[in-house]
Amino acid sequence: MGHKLFSLSVKVVIRNKNGECLLLKRSMRSSSNPGKWEFPGGVVDRGEILENAIMRETMEETGLTIQLDHVAGSAESEFREWRVAHLIMEGRFVSGKVVLSDEHDDYQWIPIDKLPGIDMPEHFTAFAVEYIKKVG
Amino acid sequence: MGHKLFSLSVKVVIRNKNGECLLLKRSMRSSSNPGKWEFPGGVVDRGEILENAIMRETMEETGLTIQLDHVAGSAESEFREWRVAHLIMEGRFVSGKVVLSDEHDDYQWIPIDKLPGIDMPEHFTAFAVEYIKKVG
Repeated sequence: MGHKLFSLSVKVVIRNKNGECLLLKRSMRSSSNPGKWEFPGGVVDRGEILENAIMRETMEETGLTIQLDHVAGSAESEFREWRVAHLIMEGRFVSGKVVLSDEHDDYQWIPIDKLPGIDMPEHFTAFAVEYIKKVG
Repeated sequence: MGHKLFSLSVKVVIRNKNGECLLLKRSMRSSSNPGKWEFPGGVVDRGEILENAIMRETMEETGLTIQLDHVAGSAESEFREWRVAHLIMEGRFVSGKVVLSDEHDDYQWIPIDKLPGIDMPEHFTAFAVEYIKKVG
């Protein structure tokens, strides 16, 4: 096993006015974490400005327009051949209706404090526990 | 005041075998935070793979070759016209001697637990406090 290179992923905790955030359920055909819940977002394409990349990913995966508010935290995950460094942002729902892409089978708006009980990849659960401490 | 777009910066806590990490002192001619201490790293150029960008920035600013170990945390800072989302990685000194660029006037290796007492921009101090809790 050589050194596994890090690639970058940016995720967004999209919050609505009811204190809930949006989770997407990964497709059962997904090669990693099938059926697990996650935050919208993904790998930043080469050449993209960070904020544009996040808006694009969010629109592609959820159909929503959002506004970015703050940096929420970070996480790390590992695959067979590489590692991923996740930068997690906090955003706000602005407009649109949820329309999923092929990558996801379902969605839910869930109160922030219920995040640790959700079936997510463990690196996102670890993030959620820290995030709740920060935002209350 | 319109919405300030986020750009991405990646910083590295470079640790040596003595439990110290490398800090660089920003040039007094710097337009932001002159004379403050900071971690190596910087803005990721468009089109770069994350890990390559970090290795390049580190080499340019410190002359050192490092190995990336883990995601260490995140931070946020604000300028007049934009905001910066910082992803902070943890790395390990591999080889080289410190050679500074024009951006910095001085450097020091400092024990991790002494970071909160250093004159850094406040977003890095906030990160350091959290980081110490995590790595002990």
